[in-house]
Amino acid sequence: MNFNIIDIINKKRLGFELSKEELEFAFNGYLNDEIPDYQMSALLMAICINDMNDREIFDLTDIFINSGEILDLSKVNGIKVDKHSTGGVGDKTTLVVAPIVASCGVCIAKMSGRGLGFTGGTIDKLESIDGFKVNLTDKEFIDQLNSINVAISSQTGNLTPLDKKIYALRDVTATVESIPLIAVSIMSKKIASGADKILVDIKLGSGALIKNEKDAKRLSEIMVKIGKKYNREVRTITTNMNVPLGNNIGNSLEVIEAIDILDGKEKNYLCDLCIKLSSILVSMAKGITEEEAKNMVYSSINNKSALNKLYELIKSQHGNINSLKVSDNVIEIKSKKEGEIQNIDAYNMGIVARDLGAGRCNKEDKIDYTVGIVLKKHISSKVKIGDVLCELYINDSSVYDVNFILDSYTII
Amino acid sequence: MNFNIIDIINKKRLGFELSKEELEFAFNGYLNDEIPDYQMSALLMAICINDMNDREIFDLTDIFINSGEILDLSKVNGIKVDKHSTGGVGDKTTLVVAPIVASCGVCIAKMSGRGLGFTGGTIDKLESIDGFKVNLTDKEFIDQLNSINVAISSQTGNLTPLDKKIYALRDVTATVESIPLIAVSIMSKKIASGADKILVDIKLGSGALIKNEKDAKRLSEIMVKIGKKYNREVRTITTNMNVPLGNNIGNSLEVIEAIDILDGKEKNYLCDLCIKLSSILVSMAKGITEEEAKNMVYSSINNKSALNKLYELIKSQHGNINSLKVSDNVIEIKSKKEGEIQNIDAYNMGIVARDLGAGRCNKEDKIDYTVGIVLKKHISSKVKIGDVLCELYINDSSVYDVNFILDSYTII
Repeated sequence: MNFNIIDIINKKRLGFELSKEELEFAFNGYLNDEIPDYQMSALLMAICINDMNDREIFDLTDIFINSGEILDLSKVNGIKVDKHSTGGVGDKTTLVVAPIVASCGVCIAKMSGRGLGFTGGTIDKLESIDGFKVNLTDKEFIDQLNSINVAISSQTGNLTPLDKKIYALRDVTATVESIPLIAVSIMSKKIASGADKILVDIKLGSGALIKNEKDAKRLSEIMVKIGKKYNREVRTITTNMNVPLGNNIGNSLEVIEAIDILDGKEKNYLCDLCIKLSSILVSMAKGITEEEAKNMVYSSINNKSALNKLYELIKSQHGNINSLKVSDNVIEIKSKKEGEIQNIDAYNMGIVARDLGAGRCNKEDKIDYTVGIVLKKHISSKVKIGDVLCELYINDSSVYDVNFILDSYTII
Repeated sequence: MNFNIIDIINKKRLGFELSKEELEFAFNGYLNDEIPDYQMSALLMAICINDMNDREIFDLTDIFINSGEILDLSKVNGIKVDKHSTGGVGDKTTLVVAPIVASCGVCIAKMSGRGLGFTGGTIDKLESIDGFKVNLTDKEFIDQLNSINVAISSQTGNLTPLDKKIYALRDVTATVESIPLIAVSIMSKKIASGADKILVDIKLGSGALIKNEKDAKRLSEIMVKIGKKYNREVRTITTNMNVPLGNNIGNSLEVIEAIDILDGKEKNYLCDLCIKLSSILVSMAKGITEEEAKNMVYSSINNKSALNKLYELIKSQHGNINSLKVSDNVIEIKSKKEGEIQNIDAYNMGIVARDLGAGRCNKEDKIDYTVGIVLKKHISSKVKIGDVLCELYINDSSVYDVNFILDSYTII
């Protein structure tokens, strides 16, 4: 059968189902540089708007998985778990959950991505630590899992290379928010990176990829179904993301907040969420109840073994935790209103952080690890005129609009 | 206001209206190479699927017009008319209509394009005449209009350059079939090329851009509205394009058919359509009824002044009409069935003509002016086995498949 990419794009533009062969022609052709960016971005936009059915999603996941190697974790002892978050503004849960779970004796094998859209991804955050090696070889990854139960690496070039290439394009073409494309991206990576049990934290809210309950439910169902096809247990949890997660937004700033949580210095919604996610992962791996798992999690925080595990992880990957830097140039944003904070728009705060330099607009953009936002007041806080709502950590090329930031706060 | 192309694409993906400033940022940025193809193609696909409202269409037309020069025809005396067809297989109406209208004393200023896809455009057809100069300067164009009432020139590089760049991208990203984008493309060109009164022939059918009546109606309405904004009277006519227009397909062959019609030798559907289009244009320019105009049109054909006007046009643009050549190598395609011809697939016949060498697959392809198809039987004709359905005028590198041609005829 002789395919033509224009006919395939046209078919999806008109809302028709694409066959596995058509998907292969388009996506493998893109991977092999036979199909240019501008045709793939048109197809991705058509998929975003006109959707895909389960069959198309299963087939595309398979194409993504088979675009590269599949990591064989059979040399790592015991059950391997993995955790994924659909991301959101200020989401540093991986930096907290991975050390907790590992310190409870459960092996957590984490392949992470760079940031797209608003703020840096886990890998970007870790790169704010001088020397931190994000590109582990398969052998280094496996060895580290066997020695300290945890390793966080960027996806190797050989794992789902198609996902990398497509993700980079989606990021700059406003085609990120698509349930089928999100499911394919997450599940192909998770299956190719070899864990037995996978927990996906679906972020829901204005600042998240998933904006409503219906989409969250659909994403959850399709990911569980994909997992079954590959004999992987998939669980999902849907968590609120209408407000930024925690106090800090920005790369170094988020690492600092993660340390504070593991050190027991910060007890907030983010802390509760990390304990919840860790408990589910420990219960899945050990076959115990979530309540039993939670007790283990609490002890590992209280006796600092979780915090020490984070330091062990950083050291094992050659990072120097003392190098962490934030900008000296700090701007206070003061309230012009009196009242109670009803809402802080996470989406807007994400845009602010990106424009300060903490995220990327183009594939080529470099992140400034030292910039970001620290929220000084939260939902339900009472504020007076002149109270500092948040601090901006900026650099010389940071762009910000004070009124846009003030308008992101609903104060009544 | 600081714009971001991703936010703009995203807004259209979600179905929201874009402001004029946002459209300017995206489209002028694309023209200036600040926005890459892959972002523009995503935006075009979002526009294709999620549509644009009247305000967006008006603004985008304005942006297209102002991307280049606007031809000033004020030095040409009287009302200037222009005619556009949304294109189709065998469409040589311009070659017939322009001389008729000019011979009725109405000034017709025609900027035409080359063909991409099936068959040559008007400019390609005129180039089948030895010496015919298709690139008139503005001054030559205006002088010729003042002296003989008609000039046909290819668009200069300075007229709507944004349309040229966007059209080339739409062509390869399955984003051609969008009513707003079609309206913007046609109307920006027509307004920039300076005529006072414009007639658009909307081709409707399986072989055409516009596939249903509803779309044709909407395209018509929006083009009329755009015209009003620029004080141009726009009229439209919707004509069937399911079968090839006239007997001849191919460049020299179509010039010959145009001459036959002007000479009164050929009375077919194409002839009726040309009389209709000419009558509308003459009535628009002179402010008379279509019936009155039709009488003028008939006289100009009967007394050969229309035919002489075509010769005058060719001579004025340095063409030698005696040079017109068709291939000596003619193949007869004979029916293998007996019955009545129910349909001749225009789309397929276009592909056949292209493969014979009459059209282009790539921008660089050279056209053979001497090849093409002459239909010997039409819809409703009764045919016997062995009757000649059509003749192919071929050259040494012509490719054709007799069964494909026979299958394009529905004979029952």
